Amino acid sequence: MSLPISFLSDFGLEDEFVGVVHGVLAKLAPGSRVIDIGHRFPRGNVKAAALALTRAIQYLPEGVCLAVVDPGVGTARKAIAAETTWGIFVGPDNGLLSPAVAMVGGAHKIVSIENPEAMIPSPGETFHGRDIFAPAAAVLASGEAGIDELGPDVAGEEIVPLLLPLTETKGSVIAGEAWWVDGFGNVQTNVAPEDLAGLGIGPGETLTVMVGSTIHSVPWVTSYGDVAEGETLIHVDSVGLLAIAVRGGRADEELRLSEGVAVTLAGSRSATAG
Amino acid sequence: MSLPISFLSDFGLEDEFVGVVHGVLAKLAPGSRVIDIGHRFPRGNVKAAALALTRAIQYLPEGVCLAVVDPGVGTARKAIAAETTWGIFVGPDNGLLSPAVAMVGGAHKIVSIENPEAMIPSPGETFHGRDIFAPAAAVLASGEAGIDELGPDVAGEEIVPLLLPLTETKGSVIAGEAWWVDGFGNVQTNVAPEDLAGLGIGPGETLTVMVGSTIHSVPWVTSYGDVAEGETLIHVDSVGLLAIAVRGGRADEELRLSEGVAVTLAGSRSATAG
Amino acid sequence: MSLPISFLSDFGLEDEFVGVVHGVLAKLAPGSRVIDIGHRFPRGNVKAAALALTRAIQYLPEGVCLAVVDPGVGTARKAIAAETTWGIFVGPDNGLLSPAVAMVGGAHKIVSIENPEAMIPSPGETFHGRDIFAPAAAVLASGEAGIDELGPDVAGEEIVPLLLPLTETKGSVIAGEAWWVDGFGNVQTNVAPEDLAGLGIGPGETLTVMVGSTIHSVPWVTSYGDVAEGETLIHVDSVGLLAIAVRGGRADEELRLSEGVAVTLAGSRSATAG
Repeated sequence: MSLPISFLSDFGLEDEFVGVVHGVLAKLAPGSRVIDIGHRFPRGNVKAAALALTRAIQYLPEGVCLAVVDPGVGTARKAIAAETTWGIFVGPDNGLLSPAVAMVGGAHKIVSIENPEAMIPSPGETFHGRDIFAPAAAVLASGEAGIDELGPDVAGEEIVPLLLPLTETKGSVIAGEAWWVDGFGNVQTNVAPEDLAGLGIGPGETLTVMVGSTIHSVPWVTSYGDVAEGETLIHVDSVGLLAIAVRGGRADEELRLSEGVAVTLAGSRSATAG
Repeated sequence: MSLPISFLSDFGLEDEFVGVVHGVLAKLAPGSRVIDIGHRFPRGNVKAAALALTRAIQYLPEGVCLAVVDPGVGTARKAIAAETTWGIFVGPDNGLLSPAVAMVGGAHKIVSIENPEAMIPSPGETFHGRDIFAPAAAVLASGEAGIDELGPDVAGEEIVPLLLPLTETKGSVIAGEAWWVDGFGNVQTNVAPEDLAGLGIGPGETLTVMVGSTIHSVPWVTSYGDVAEGETLIHVDSVGLLAIAVRGGRADEELRLSEGVAVTLAGSRSATAG
Repeated sequence: MSLPISFLSDFGLEDEFVGVVHGVLAKLAPGSRVIDIGHRFPRGNVKAAALALTRAIQYLPEGVCLAVVDPGVGTARKAIAAETTWGIFVGPDNGLLSPAVAMVGGAHKIVSIENPEAMIPSPGETFHGRDIFAPAAAVLASGEAGIDELGPDVAGEEIVPLLLPLTETKGSVIAGEAWWVDGFGNVQTNVAPEDLAGLGIGPGETLTVMVGSTIHSVPWVTSYGDVAEGETLIHVDSVGLLAIAVRGGRADEELRLSEGVAVTLAGSRSATAG
C-alpha cells in the first residue's frame, strides 16, 4: 500500500526542478499519488511557505508531506523526518515544517536523515530536494523503509522552531499584522475572532482598522454579498482568521497592506474615543 | 469505478489554493485521476475561462468537470451541477459552464448544490472551490452520490447564460472581434470559415483585415510554412476558427490586437472597392 | 502495462494547452502516469528546453518522453519518435530531443510519425502537440501501437542535431560560457571539472573568473556553507558542471551573467600572470 505524497517547494515552475522531483518520486514510489501543494512561494521565504502548509494540511490526504524551501542547502542544517498522527513530514530543519506539525498535534518521533542508502548519489551539494528529501519521502510512502531507517533520533527541542508574530491586546485594541495576501488581494491578519470576542466585539459590528496613521471603518460581515461592489469588508476567512477584503477589488491595494505590515483592530466606539 | 475529474480555475499557482482542492479531491475520490485544465486564467474573467473550457472539452476524458471562476462567491449566485452526455459539470452559476455544456449537446438535468452533507464545514464563506464545488465533484466522480442527492432541480432557463459576441455580415464584410490571444501571440477571431464562405471567400485568397482604421492584406493559408518568416497569415486554427498569426512572431503586437477588439474581414476585392 | 509519460513543453500555463494534452493522454492512455517536466521554458527556445531535458532525463521513470518546443510547427519539419534503452522520445525533429537521446546512449531506431490513424483529425495545422505528438506518445505508452506502426524509418544522420558550444582550452585558461541560469540566479557553465583538472586545477583552489573585462577571484568549494553569506563561490553543481553561485544571493546579478555570455576560468596563478 503506497501512501500519497503532498509536495510543496519554492522551486518555481520555470525550470525542470519540480518535474525532476516528480520523476524521482515516480521511480521510487510508483504507486503513490503526488499532490502539488504549490511551488511558487517566494524563494527562500520559509515563513510564507510554512503558513501555506499550515493552512493546507488538514485538507491533504494523510500520508507523506515533502516540503522544500531550503535557503540553507549546503550548510550544516539538518534534513529531518517527523512522524505525526497525520503522517510523516520530510524537509529541512529550518522551521518550515514546525507550524504544520504543531497543527496536527505535534511529532512523536523526529529523525535526522543521514542514511546514505536512502539518498541519490550526486556530484553536487545543491539539490537536496532531488537527492535527499524526495528519496526519503518516496521510501516512506512506498513502505520500503521506516522512519527509523533514515537516521538517528532528534529531540523535539533541538528542532528549529518558526517564530510567528502574536497579536497583542492593548487596552481596547488588538495589535496584529497582515500575514498573508492571497492572489486576489485579500489580506489575512493574524487576529482570530476570539481575540476580538475578548474585547466584546463580534460580527455585525463596524470595526476600526488602523494601518499606519490611516483609519478605516469596516463592517464585520459574513460574506462578500453583505456589502456593495467596491466596498471594504472584514470577515472570518476560510482558515478561520479575520481577513480584510474588497468586494470585486483588491484590499491590499485599497488599504496599502502587504505581508508584515501592522494592523490594529478595534470596535467603533474605541475609534470614536481615540 | 471512479471517473476522472478535469479541473479549471482562476486561483493562480502562487498560493496553495489549487493544491488544497487537489487534496480534497484525493481524500474524497482517491481513485479519480485529476487533470488540470489550467489555473492561470485572468482572475474573475468568466468569459475567458468559459471560452477555454469550450475549446478544451472535447479533448478531456468523459467524467466530471470542476470549474471555478467565481467573482460572485459569497453572494446569492447558485452553485450548480449539470448532467450532459459528456458527464457532469460542477461550478458557479455565472455563465462559466454554459458554452461548454452547450458544446457537448446541452444539459438534461441541472441541480442547485445545497445539500450540506456534500459540503466541507468551514469558518468562512470565501473558498467554495474547496468547501462546496470540490466535494460535490468528488462524490459524483467516486459514485458516492448521484446528482439528485446534491440538491433540487433547476430549470435550464433559470441558469445564467454567457452572452458571446456574434459576427455580423455587413454587405461584403464580416464584422467580428478578437476573442482570444494565446500565449504565443496568435489572435483567434470569432469568425468561422463558413462566415467567409457565405461571401464566396475561401482559403488561398488574400483577405483584407481591418483593425481600427488600419487595413492589412493577409493571405489565408493552411499552415505557417506557407508564408515566409515574419509574415502575417490568416488560417483556420486548431479550434476551427479564423486566426491571425505571424510566422515566428506575435500577431497581437504586430496588428495591435487584444481580446475584445473589433476585427473586420473581407475579400481583397471589396478592400479595393472600399 | 502502461508506461509513464514525461511531458515537457513551452506552452506556458496561462492557456488550456497543457491541460488539453493531458486530456488526450488520459483518454488514449488511461493507465499511464503523466509527469510534467516543465512547461514554462522560454517560448520557441529549443536549446534551453533541450538542456533541461538532458539534465532531467536520468531522474525520469523509463517509458515515454513527450517533448514539444516547436517553433517550426506547420512547416516541413518532421515529427519523430526515437527508441532508446531509456524508452521512446516523441517530438519535433528540430534538435530538441537530440542531447537527451545522446545522454541515454543514442537511438537504435527513429521513425517519422506519418500514420494518420495515430493522429487526431483537426481543422488546423498549429497544435501538433495535441493532434500528433500526444496521440503518438499515448499509443506507445499504452502499448496499443509499436514505434514501427507510426511511420517509416529515418536514418540517425538525417535527424537535426543540436549544436552546443564546446569549451576551449587556450593556454592556461578555459573559455566557456554561461549556459543556464536557474530560477535562484545560479549560473551553470559548460565547463566540467575535468576541463580544469586538465590544467592541474582542482577543488579548494581559488579560481579566476573572467566575465567581459571584469575579473573575479572565486573559491572552488564543495557546498554553499563553505563561504560566508553574500560571498561568491564556484562549485560542481547537481548536474556535474561548474557553476557560479552567491550564498544567499543571485550570481547572475552579481556577476552580470546571462545565458550565452562568455566565461573564462583559470587558476589564480595564471590570473596573477595575466
